Amino acid sequence: MNAPDTPFSAPPLPAALLDALRTDFAERCSTALAVREQHGRDESIFDVPPPQAVVFAETEAEVARVVMLCASHRVPVIPYGAGSSLEGHLLAVRGGISLDVSRMSRILRIDAEDLTVTVQPGVTRKALNEALRHEGLFFPIDPGADASLGGMAATRASGTNAVRYGTMRENVLALRFVAANGDIVRTGSRAKKSSAGYDLTRLVIGSEGTLGVITELTVKVHPLPEALSAAVCFFPSIDAAVRTAMQVIQIGVPIARCELLDTNAIKAVNAHDKLGLKEAPMLLMEFHGSEAGVAEQAAVVQDVAAEFGGEAFEWATTPEARTRLWTARHHAYLSGLQMRPGCRAITTDTCVPISRLAENINASIAEVEAAGLPYFVVGHVGDGNFHMAYLLDPADPQELATAERLSAQMVARAIAMEGTCTGEHGIGLHKQGFLLDETGEEAVAVMRAVKAALDPAGIMNPGKIFAG
Amino acid sequence: MNAPDTPFSAPPLPAALLDALRTDFAERCSTALAVREQHGRDESIFDVPPPQAVVFAETEAEVARVVMLCASHRVPVIPYGAGSSLEGHLLAVRGGISLDVSRMSRILRIDAEDLTVTVQPGVTRKALNEALRHEGLFFPIDPGADASLGGMAATRASGTNAVRYGTMRENVLALRFVAANGDIVRTGSRAKKSSAGYDLTRLVIGSEGTLGVITELTVKVHPLPEALSAAVCFFPSIDAAVRTAMQVIQIGVPIARCELLDTNAIKAVNAHDKLGLKEAPMLLMEFHGSEAGVAEQAAVVQDVAAEFGGEAFEWATTPEARTRLWTARHHAYLSGLQMRPGCRAITTDTCVPISRLAENINASIAEVEAAGLPYFVVGHVGDGNFHMAYLLDPADPQELATAERLSAQMVARAIAMEGTCTGEHGIGLHKQGFLLDETGEEAVAVMRAVKAALDPAGIMNPGKIFAG
Repeated sequence: MNAPDTPFSAPPLPAALLDALRTDFAERCSTALAVREQHGRDESIFDVPPPQAVVFAETEAEVARVVMLCASHRVPVIPYGAGSSLEGHLLAVRGGISLDVSRMSRILRIDAEDLTVTVQPGVTRKALNEALRHEGLFFPIDPGADASLGGMAATRASGTNAVRYGTMRENVLALRFVAANGDIVRTGSRAKKSSAGYDLTRLVIGSEGTLGVITELTVKVHPLPEALSAAVCFFPSIDAAVRTAMQVIQIGVPIARCELLDTNAIKAVNAHDKLGLKEAPMLLMEFHGSEAGVAEQAAVVQDVAAEFGGEAFEWATTPEARTRLWTARHHAYLSGLQMRPGCRAITTDTCVPISRLAENINASIAEVEAAGLPYFVVGHVGDGNFHMAYLLDPADPQELATAERLSAQMVARAIAMEGTCTGEHGIGLHKQGFLLDETGEEAVAVMRAVKAALDPAGIMNPGKIFAG
Repeated sequence: MNAPDTPFSAPPLPAALLDALRTDFAERCSTALAVREQHGRDESIFDVPPPQAVVFAETEAEVARVVMLCASHRVPVIPYGAGSSLEGHLLAVRGGISLDVSRMSRILRIDAEDLTVTVQPGVTRKALNEALRHEGLFFPIDPGADASLGGMAATRASGTNAVRYGTMRENVLALRFVAANGDIVRTGSRAKKSSAGYDLTRLVIGSEGTLGVITELTVKVHPLPEALSAAVCFFPSIDAAVRTAMQVIQIGVPIARCELLDTNAIKAVNAHDKLGLKEAPMLLMEFHGSEAGVAEQAAVVQDVAAEFGGEAFEWATTPEARTRLWTARHHAYLSGLQMRPGCRAITTDTCVPISRLAENINASIAEVEAAGLPYFVVGHVGDGNFHMAYLLDPADPQELATAERLSAQMVARAIAMEGTCTGEHGIGLHKQGFLLDETGEEAVAVMRAVKAALDPAGIMNPGKIFAG
């Protein structure tokens, strides 16, 4: 699929820029095709020429050096973390340098008493949790991939724990970033709250690399709960499962995770992870708290589920059983892709007010069934957010067109329901039209004005969020 | 006290502007001195000439009309809600129009199933909670004053419930605001989370009226807890009380409110509200949850308090007793002022990582005791935030100078502790130097660039957050 503003043929990199990068970074500046191609592809379906060079930065000063060199030559800079974005965020649609910060992967400080940690942007969520476990702490944000914290901030990521612990928006206290002019900007502090001026932390979170390169993050972490239990419950219909989730939220149960898998997704994880789960719509839930609190929450949720025909819970009582279930959930996307070998996927990401969720999912399933495309559904239903993956034959442009039509219908419906075209994946290349539909020209004009003010030459990941 | 960039003498309002406003707003455009003076004064200690006119807007379209008229004449617009800000936010340091939105006080929608409400900016927190009570819901953000929601968003307010429910930053889902060019901008949606472009909602929250006039807010509300209990506990020292709060947070108790009053504050509320509380450092706490959950939390906290010499809890078991205690807490500021009749107060607002809180409070008390100024302390200690009010004789410039010196020392210490100069009051006129100290020139330069991009003529509440 062509990206929105391709075909575009970038002029060759200025020789002076490449010379300077090679002088400073030696073998950490690469123009090898394999390296460039690896940095020019994400989980999206776009085909775009790779970046013209890749630079591996190891310090904040090096990030600033690359940005300043590129600024002086007006060459684009595309920050690169784990490469797991879904909407074309890291594609070099205007050419330029992929600035890989994955080697900036040190956990700088764990302040257990304050429930904060400070990390470099290349630290991944799994590496962070591995380090935190020994402290009795965890970091809750868990997009499916083992994404980097810098990338997760840049796309305002969330995942399965957001229903209780919030998203990157709520869990980042402070940042350092390199602005387009090379300035190193500090935002926020380690204080839990602040009214000190514009919220630059939140401005950078979700800005998809278009305002600067994140070089450090201080995030909130949470005490590992005293008690933790996971359960699965199977329902006669998707509708029943979603209505259960809706009611659990509405009555205020502090459920920690509340995930939907449809029958197709169950089949996929059964095949991939040999789980033997009943092939019916399922909620996968987790409860965090004291022993008594967890039992109480679970009892309330069981009552609600029973009202909607949910079968008796199956408990995952051992850590191993829990890990197995949640690993399956995190594999659902890749497992689902394997249901149609060789396919590519378009994954939707609408999020609506919880009262409209069942209606949105039901209508979306009716539409995809009518269209006859293979699909599966997973959802962070406690947040009103779900993903439908359309599994496409890459050789059949008609399937792609059908998926794009279904996706556009779903987004239009979500917006009409006062929801959003993207709960957690971001705009990237794919959803620029939807962003306009959702928030209007006036708001996008404000975004453009902010971008132009902070990056007048337009070198920071240009062409993302909005063309221009 | 002179404001930072006074003396300033605003040119007279252009006659054409005044004529247009009078034509459109008739008696809702006032140049009466009493009205102007009432709109030119807040809870801060600055003496500034009042705004040159006051316009009472009743609709979003009227707000846009005022902004466009003022833009065409390059006259400042100062949004006005309840007038309860503390740092000079609404003072007319460059002259101009006070745009009073307090009559935009309709609750537009209560979406109980989604736990959201949509309000006009002049709705106050008490009016909102009055309306929500019948729905079994509440809105948690509670600055001391009965502030307007528009103003609370503009200053990123919080209050006593923030330790559990967050601040305006976490509780606003969507906004409408009139930008400096008269555009009506929509931000966010009713979805609980979104990755759709720059977070303009959070950019406006805390911007103190410098980027536009908020005309509508959609906020999260919360189910009234099934069970709720309040307790007071007295300690042998401030240090013991604060260390109790620190440990309660560190072990992850989901306490809903955790407020410190020092002996001076207790004396004040005893005198004002005839409470008969023991005159010793006190924690006032509240627990929200199920019956069993509340009992469990309280038991844990009692154990922690006992370790630090806290005397056995006194429970406020009836709603009346709870209301009496919390009303006293909300009156603490005004009660405190009455301890020195005729005084004016400077109130500090530092917030630090919780592990540094005891040290910060202890040092601050040692300094004020050494200086001999009358003071009292109240604190949202669960958040690491506390307020020290210095009670000053307005006729004695030496006292003011002493208070400013103590305040500056406290802020410098909070910043050295990786905290903030303001947890919830904002920058306004008073803390512009502290903002620079805290976040650095690079970050303030970014804020200025954003301001210049969105308000190139500098008409939106000029001179606040940063001069210029």
